[in-house]
Amino acid sequence: MGQGQKKADRAWREAMTIHLDVNGMMAAMLGEAGIQEDTFAALQPRLQAADAALQHARQSGTLPFYDLPYQNISGVQALAESVRQECDALVVLGIGGSALGTRALARALLPPFSVQTPVLHVADNIDPASFGALLDSLDLSRTIFNVISKSGETAETMAQFLIVRQLLQEKLGAGAVRQRIIVTTDATSGYLRPLVDREGWRDLIIPAGVGGRFSVFAPVGLFPTAVAGINIEELLAGAAWMDTRCRGTEVWQNPALLFAALQFVAAKPILVMMPYSDALAEVSEWFCQLWAESLGKERDRQGRIVHTGQTPVRALGTTDQHSQVQLYTEGPNDKVLVFLRVTDPERELTIPESYPEVEGLHYLSGAGLGALLRHEQRATEIALAKKGRMSCTFTLPVVNAFTLGQLLYLLEVATAIAGELYDVNAFDQPGVEEGKHLTYGMMGRAGFAEKDAEVRAWEEKRQGRFVV
Amino acid sequence: MGQGQKKADRAWREAMTIHLDVNGMMAAMLGEAGIQEDTFAALQPRLQAADAALQHARQSGTLPFYDLPYQNISGVQALAESVRQECDALVVLGIGGSALGTRALARALLPPFSVQTPVLHVADNIDPASFGALLDSLDLSRTIFNVISKSGETAETMAQFLIVRQLLQEKLGAGAVRQRIIVTTDATSGYLRPLVDREGWRDLIIPAGVGGRFSVFAPVGLFPTAVAGINIEELLAGAAWMDTRCRGTEVWQNPALLFAALQFVAAKPILVMMPYSDALAEVSEWFCQLWAESLGKERDRQGRIVHTGQTPVRALGTTDQHSQVQLYTEGPNDKVLVFLRVTDPERELTIPESYPEVEGLHYLSGAGLGALLRHEQRATEIALAKKGRMSCTFTLPVVNAFTLGQLLYLLEVATAIAGELYDVNAFDQPGVEEGKHLTYGMMGRAGFAEKDAEVRAWEEKRQGRFVV
Repeated sequence: MGQGQKKADRAWREAMTIHLDVNGMMAAMLGEAGIQEDTFAALQPRLQAADAALQHARQSGTLPFYDLPYQNISGVQALAESVRQECDALVVLGIGGSALGTRALARALLPPFSVQTPVLHVADNIDPASFGALLDSLDLSRTIFNVISKSGETAETMAQFLIVRQLLQEKLGAGAVRQRIIVTTDATSGYLRPLVDREGWRDLIIPAGVGGRFSVFAPVGLFPTAVAGINIEELLAGAAWMDTRCRGTEVWQNPALLFAALQFVAAKPILVMMPYSDALAEVSEWFCQLWAESLGKERDRQGRIVHTGQTPVRALGTTDQHSQVQLYTEGPNDKVLVFLRVTDPERELTIPESYPEVEGLHYLSGAGLGALLRHEQRATEIALAKKGRMSCTFTLPVVNAFTLGQLLYLLEVATAIAGELYDVNAFDQPGVEEGKHLTYGMMGRAGFAEKDAEVRAWEEKRQGRFVV
Repeated sequence: MGQGQKKADRAWREAMTIHLDVNGMMAAMLGEAGIQEDTFAALQPRLQAADAALQHARQSGTLPFYDLPYQNISGVQALAESVRQECDALVVLGIGGSALGTRALARALLPPFSVQTPVLHVADNIDPASFGALLDSLDLSRTIFNVISKSGETAETMAQFLIVRQLLQEKLGAGAVRQRIIVTTDATSGYLRPLVDREGWRDLIIPAGVGGRFSVFAPVGLFPTAVAGINIEELLAGAAWMDTRCRGTEVWQNPALLFAALQFVAAKPILVMMPYSDALAEVSEWFCQLWAESLGKERDRQGRIVHTGQTPVRALGTTDQHSQVQLYTEGPNDKVLVFLRVTDPERELTIPESYPEVEGLHYLSGAGLGALLRHEQRATEIALAKKGRMSCTFTLPVVNAFTLGQLLYLLEVATAIAGELYDVNAFDQPGVEEGKHLTYGMMGRAGFAEKDAEVRAWEEKRQGRFVV
């Protein structure tokens, strides 16, 4: 790249940079209900400790999600390019972190209401009505299934996989399984790895140490989105660009640090993420997993009972102004609103001149529909501020792979920092084990008979008179 | 109907009855973390007062939502039947209560992944990217638009309407507007009523006194769902059946009273509705509006500042076990989980026998996918209970119009009762007015210049150094 192109590229990146506007949380705007600027000075030792711990972990290789933007993606791209020729539909069989990043990116970056080939389906539930209907709708001879599970033990995904494997065998013969199943799993461990090696399925690797909810920039998220036509190089470039911005311990220079620190200081039990953009609607779903599962912990790292964790809620502007904003404005002041605002979207629709005699319609004449959307975001922010309700706003110039890469990377880093501030392990999820074990018990899995007995004991406590 | 058929019909309704299981909230199951049964005895005077107030309001005609199950729907059905012949697509232009009931019913009762004609679209946002893409995708000559707004003043819906009206004029000529727009609005008031009368558009009436979030059983919800092929007679029969069950002041006989009373007594800040059924996923969205907007109030009916309102959150099982359940189990004990469980769904998929040598997969062999889904619901409920976390469960035998009618009606009545218990007006939404007025100001609407000035004053407070 020549010097001139580099400069132009830098200018493009600057223009494409997303920003975090936290005016709506500060005392300068909110008065007593807001945060004083000097709060951050007092917090500085903790922010420095958090940064030091995370930088150490990054450098020692225990937090590899940080460096996913810099991975070599030629293998993923080559496989995706090949698969694009082989199929009309790619079906992801995965749940939680194996599904949410792909869903967020697909919703954001693929055109709505158009049927592109290959079409991307994410099957992240096991309801037989909808999973069966999906399978019925597919031309299996033109479908590839991407099975995603690091452990190969995820009950939902494995059940889907077994059903699909049999279906392919029955309808297309045993050879079809090898052609039509691509497995994304651990390089060496888990139940899927030996099957992959034995059966010769094509596979992709989830890097060691990258947990599900931090895997959107791993092949988990990159492969299906690349097959669907998303520019994953630009996505990672956005993440890398944000990496350069999320450095240091100065909150007014590091947006991830600022976001984590503000939520920590505000200490509101609920965080509502509310994009004013249909394309960004599922970013909230992805974020809700990231934030809830990382920070919702019974114990801190010293083993003390703490019961931490904001409850993340996803909303959508303007739609939820007509559903949730009444509560946000007048109900308990227990929330921070996090708006996502697209400042310069590509498409606009003009509301035509009409009915000059009808005052309640005429004021809309000539305005842009997108301008109305942005005005409503601002109006909601101010109406909340007038009631002492906190909000902050991520602004994206446009919705593209580069801005999405920035946003998701920023939120991942902010989550890691928040884990440090709350002093919890942001990378485990011990609270879901019990439910898995009880399920194994009911399913008759070897070694879980006592869990089955436990379920029966609970069921015996159930009283008919408490069922109406 | 003969005596035998009536009997059979009664037996069918009994078999189709939905139930509320509250064991997971009671001390008998949860111990100290649960509710003692005698709590309800102490609450009895309040429950009686609530019931008396609501019965009086119902009988005096001020709460007409109660009697929508008994309305004459021949006009709605005739228009729907006619429109089914006229179009390949029906597009609802509406937001909030004008959209959410239709979305919930369509998701629940129309087959997934099949392209039925007419296809139903609900355009409940104003993002130009998605609304434009929707309009681009339509064959306008085979599309009917159903504009829904009681006041005719809903900015989002009116903006959509004006854009669609011009598009129809341009593409198909002025006559197309009359053929292709059907308006659902107030009988006498609002900005749309005079236009309807002057232009001769076909229309449907939102009964006086029926607010948006209580309008799913009004033509608001009935007409588009009938066009899409949903049996609205059965839907209303389900609602009427539930009406007969939601009578009296005995919590163990009246499921709506029980639900409202339990939430009131539990006093948890957050209510999570978590269907274990893809079909029921949008019932939660509908409920979230109903519960949030009705109960999230700054003042009680004596004008005292109270800031009431649980924050409703929608989740989906099993999907959100891999996203939110870690937080629900280990985070703050500030939630009630409300599960929706389908006990006897029509479709099942069998997980095939496979890999006898792989213990981590083999236990799935021969089980039903739906059985796994139901086991996981139970496992989640018990895992939560073991941590002292409250839950209750609505069980539906199957998902059909009759069970949906019951469920939605029950939740409407429970919301009205909860309004009485919190002593707030469950039928207004004063907190959204400020945002509307600020938007009018920015849009230059006559009479709102001071609101525009107010926005500017707020924007002047915004400081660049708080944007990173």
